[in-house]
Amino acid sequence: MPKPESYSKPRAASRRPSRKSRNRVALKGTVRAAKRSGTKSELKYIPWNTVPVEDLNPLLQRHFVVGGDIMVARVLMKKGCIVPLHSHHNEQVTYILEGALKFWIDGKEIVVRAGEVLTIPRNMPHKAEALEDTVDLDVFNPPRADWIEKTDKYLRGAK
Amino acid sequence: MPKPESYSKPRAASRRPSRKSRNRVALKGTVRAAKRSGTKSELKYIPWNTVPVEDLNPLLQRHFVVGGDIMVARVLMKKGCIVPLHSHHNEQVTYILEGALKFWIDGKEIVVRAGEVLTIPRNMPHKAEALEDTVDLDVFNPPRADWIEKTDKYLRGAK
Repeated sequence: MPKPESYSKPRAASRRPSRKSRNRVALKGTVRAAKRSGTKSELKYIPWNTVPVEDLNPLLQRHFVVGGDIMVARVLMKKGCIVPLHSHHNEQVTYILEGALKFWIDGKEIVVRAGEVLTIPRNMPHKAEALEDTVDLDVFNPPRADWIEKTDKYLRGAK
Repeated sequence: MPKPESYSKPRAASRRPSRKSRNRVALKGTVRAAKRSGTKSELKYIPWNTVPVEDLNPLLQRHFVVGGDIMVARVLMKKGCIVPLHSHHNEQVTYILEGALKFWIDGKEIVVRAGEVLTIPRNMPHKAEALEDTVDLDVFNPPRADWIEKTDKYLRGAK
């Protein structure tokens, strides 16, 4: 999957402004960036069965679709699959489509079953275990760079 | 549903800085805002069957969950339901869970069926028609303020 545009760096200014005007230019640029609703995305029609499923460990498979600032992932877990404790700056909304996933999060144990949702704030550590074979739809903002770049070592090889 | 925190205004500065430092302060504040990954959200466990379903017209029902910068909506359409041409600044990812939805978008006609996804860039006009009874999962960034505030007149009363 190509690196999404959301990770492209802003274009460098074509000329360096005078020292006098640099602060003003920087402010304008930053305001512009802040006002922009987000990263440019493309119109894409994607049947899930055309998106290769990645085997992360014997109990865990995953594939995902990336728009601009949204990633939607189908995470396929066999009963007993454990997602070790981790956290990320990405906001997460988990919607269990099939099965059941037990979370350890914010000092609580929460079982999320088919037809149920968990909203996970940015940077909140969480661990999970599949109590049944589970199809988990995970939504992230922004997209998980570690998943795209395959640097999510906490998942790879874990059971 | 309470107004989510994503719509709260930033706190006003506790004191007005001197004219001399205002530009610098404004710049710092804006950079801080731009660097922040997004809006604060809360840990929420939400079974869909506890989220009231809103009747928008005889063929269209909807309910949604809002995190911080993510909204996930279940849109329930009867065959023949038409979503009139509209656009919004929110990025959208549509995942059809059941049924089939025909889109008119970007000069094309695209039928998205169960198990298929459409990523819709911000501000791209689109119209849709349910070819069958359809369960459509729509993900937005940021959340649709017009849906939360019930100002989405293009949907209300339309068939």
